[in-house]
Amino acid sequence: MAGRGVAERRVLKVKAGARPGTDGDPGAEAGAWRARDRLAVEEPLELRVAGRPVGVTMRTPGNDFELAVGYCISERLVARPDDLEAVRYCAPEGQPQEFNVLTVDLRPGVPVPDPSLDRLAVTSSSCGVCGKASIEAVTVACPALAGDGLAVPAGVLAAIPDRVREAQRVFEQTGGLHAAAVCDAEGTVHCVREDVGRHNAVDKVIGWAATEHRLPLTGMVLFVSGRCSFEVVQKAAVAGVPLVAAVSAPTSLAVDLAEQVGITLVGFLRGDTMNVYSHAHRVSLPTPAASPAPA
Amino acid sequence: MAGRGVAERRVLKVKAGARPGTDGDPGAEAGAWRARDRLAVEEPLELRVAGRPVGVTMRTPGNDFELAVGYCISERLVARPDDLEAVRYCAPEGQPQEFNVLTVDLRPGVPVPDPSLDRLAVTSSSCGVCGKASIEAVTVACPALAGDGLAVPAGVLAAIPDRVREAQRVFEQTGGLHAAAVCDAEGTVHCVREDVGRHNAVDKVIGWAATEHRLPLTGMVLFVSGRCSFEVVQKAAVAGVPLVAAVSAPTSLAVDLAEQVGITLVGFLRGDTMNVYSHAHRVSLPTPAASPAPA
Repeated sequence: MAGRGVAERRVLKVKAGARPGTDGDPGAEAGAWRARDRLAVEEPLELRVAGRPVGVTMRTPGNDFELAVGYCISERLVARPDDLEAVRYCAPEGQPQEFNVLTVDLRPGVPVPDPSLDRLAVTSSSCGVCGKASIEAVTVACPALAGDGLAVPAGVLAAIPDRVREAQRVFEQTGGLHAAAVCDAEGTVHCVREDVGRHNAVDKVIGWAATEHRLPLTGMVLFVSGRCSFEVVQKAAVAGVPLVAAVSAPTSLAVDLAEQVGITLVGFLRGDTMNVYSHAHRVSLPTPAASPAPA
Repeated sequence: MAGRGVAERRVLKVKAGARPGTDGDPGAEAGAWRARDRLAVEEPLELRVAGRPVGVTMRTPGNDFELAVGYCISERLVARPDDLEAVRYCAPEGQPQEFNVLTVDLRPGVPVPDPSLDRLAVTSSSCGVCGKASIEAVTVACPALAGDGLAVPAGVLAAIPDRVREAQRVFEQTGGLHAAAVCDAEGTVHCVREDVGRHNAVDKVIGWAATEHRLPLTGMVLFVSGRCSFEVVQKAAVAGVPLVAAVSAPTSLAVDLAEQVGITLVGFLRGDTMNVYSHAHRVSLPTPAASPAPA
């Protein structure tokens, strides 16, 4: 992974010294020097389903098969993981193997998705695209999560970012990658995937879950290292995840969708604090210690 | 902008106290309380060109016309800003005005873009999609930037993030928005736009530039508040921007494209330091102060 996911480039490091409008002496600390920098690799991946191109995504190479499977499932190109028969790199006869084109084969009888419907799936036939329509489209496709009994102590949630960071290999080296992870109610990290694209990282963990026959992800937590958009909650809903936790802010539509489909949405998971935006019953609150008895 | 770009939601704020594995006393500081939180609004926007839907993007409402114009230009749906005749919200007869569907009208004689070619534009006819092909596609569309004479002192670059932050209105309130800005060689901020989507923020400033008849953005700096992907550099190249500066890391392909098309790419612009990844001649280096004369 580190081999394909990280690339070295030459860089000129510059220290400007004092900035305009400040009174510091710019000269003493200022300077420039050459160095090598490790960057996250970004490469296009063309995805074909049953031979038909459905899209190109910019992604970090690595776990490409999981990305393809997760994308097909989370974008609802197929109805069930079982609809997928195989994933393979595209290599026409007599040509060299290509690692940036993936073909997903469907089981006999499974309808071939129409990619033109894909990105437009939230729109109605007239001028009716809005957040409400988007939420309704997801709600129809994903039965609301019922009482699943999941309860995660707030302290366990607070520990997840550090645990995921330990499990990452590329992040520390590049500073350029998003992470997504699947954790259980004890905070154990079952899967971490990284990508320059936030949604790709989520697709990779969903693809991992599908490949491991662990869908739906009942009783599990989906962790994302950055912000939480509508699409992240949408993918979580399709995967049956009851709790989504993000290091940064969710959007308003992410909160609204989580509320609607029954997902517990946690944001700003930093240090020992967090914000719970929906269905807070799955976060076990800490019990304040009894006040010390007066002396 | 603040009205449509920010939404309030109720939130449960949780402080977990000590985390598992640490020895602190969890009880004393732990707790939970209800509050209201301000979130970045995310809403789908359907874009139609000459009546034909070309895509749906999740965006923060505000500057929608600029987003539509910038998207058409930076994704090369049209060859020139002059090809666009008008932008309007879609409101069929007898239906209420819809603010999430925009129609871009083309001047008579301008060919209608084929959206099916859009996202697949980087692929060749056989299995040939790769970073190199992507770079070549952009290079063909965008003449390499010639000697434009732009030189920006490193200290001016270092001051841009603070200046942009001052110019932002929504960022401080939500913590959830990306910013893109156009600055000149003195660091003056000419335009700031925000969005939950990094690319949307860039499209909005390019749409602003088109609307103000300021394309190409010769002699200007494009600033982005987060990481710098291939697509950000691609949009900068189409807009004729000679210098792109990002607060966080670029990807490998962003660096390769910048190198190829002649763009100066600055990353990790933080405090008074930065990394220059390509065409460093446009960054004027600080002159170290002469050593004090020996006493």
